Amino acid sequence: MPDRSSIPRPAAKRLSLYLREAGICVRIGRQTVSSRQLGEALGVSDAQVRKDLALLGQFGQSGVGYDASALYQQLRQALGTDRNWNTLLVGAGNIGRALLGHAAFEAEGFKITAVFDSATSLVGTTIIGHRIRPMSELGSCVKELRVRIGIMAVPRDAAQVVADQLVRAGVSGLLNFASRRVELPDTVRILSVDFTGSLERLAFEIHAAEGGLAESA
Amino acid sequence: MPDRSSIPRPAAKRLSLYLREAGICVRIGRQTVSSRQLGEALGVSDAQVRKDLALLGQFGQSGVGYDASALYQQLRQALGTDRNWNTLLVGAGNIGRALLGHAAFEAEGFKITAVFDSATSLVGTTIIGHRIRPMSELGSCVKELRVRIGIMAVPRDAAQVVADQLVRAGVSGLLNFASRRVELPDTVRILSVDFTGSLERLAFEIHAAEGGLAESA
Repeated sequence: MPDRSSIPRPAAKRLSLYLREAGICVRIGRQTVSSRQLGEALGVSDAQVRKDLALLGQFGQSGVGYDASALYQQLRQALGTDRNWNTLLVGAGNIGRALLGHAAFEAEGFKITAVFDSATSLVGTTIIGHRIRPMSELGSCVKELRVRIGIMAVPRDAAQVVADQLVRAGVSGLLNFASRRVELPDTVRILSVDFTGSLERLAFEIHAAEGGLAESA
Repeated sequence: MPDRSSIPRPAAKRLSLYLREAGICVRIGRQTVSSRQLGEALGVSDAQVRKDLALLGQFGQSGVGYDASALYQQLRQALGTDRNWNTLLVGAGNIGRALLGHAAFEAEGFKITAVFDSATSLVGTTIIGHRIRPMSELGSCVKELRVRIGIMAVPRDAAQVVADQLVRAGVSGLLNFASRRVELPDTVRILSVDFTGSLERLAFEIHAAEGGLAESA
């Protein structure tokens, strides 16, 4: 088993992308995948791929490549996605519903076990197979269902309050869709999905390309 | 005006985060912001902040900090978000509707000028103030409305076909919400928002923290 503590964070990010590619290979029944194919998919060199995968103790065979299925399993183990992660969702608005309809989550080991909303008009209704629960049940739910990750799809003004409630309830990490930074204790991890920030970065890429920023910069 | 070609990409990513923070300062009426405040918001050192902002020719005054409003304007100019970017949306499902309801886009200079869907049951209906157009109007719309960015909120199986249509129509960049990699010509930029990938990275962060990965790694 790979020593997680020896994997630098940037490499870990690439490993999650190799995992995606290896998963596709497994699903379409491909037996092997080369470092060149993985590199092309991610836009990195095949030397970088070989270096990253050597972190897992995976060494492809020259001219043959990596065994797709073995690579997939080792990547899942290294990234911690070989076990199931119970999650819960706060916010049953448009983004929340989009996430509930996202079948890929469960396939990848992330199960949305419960859905919460503060709107009394939604509490008790069923959305995409989930009964919407009141926020007052958050604490007991995290404990009973052993929830590790809270997904926040709430308006920006509610973000900090909901984050505080999730932290008190005992989650280890937050996936935040509210475009607002929230303050958290150091023990809780957070990852934000920021739609406007993504558009800004894309606009900069276009802008920079037009302004002559070197391709390799 | 800063020379865009001199800004390395990792710095550009941080600049878009400084822009967010400077925008918050301007909105709440704060006159100045220090490198330490900016650094804390992003989790980087104040020395890094000063180095990044020096790329724009911005030098804070010791003990006073940066003029928030001037910094905001210079960041917008450097990142190309001082002009308006016309965008269009393909896909009026849950994610598409969440994006249409996302008021922050227009405030930040990204206007969704038109919405398309391939479902005949949706074409012609109005969703959050937008009449849904048929895909056949894509090409003329990009030209007439001078659309630069196509936002794809389509099922993964449709992603490549829709990307090809957007490229043929002449957009400069794609924001992709389908969890599938698409092939594009080098002239077109793409940025993908991948929900499952985000959960995987978060899970890895938690997993690594439990496994003793150094905080500073």
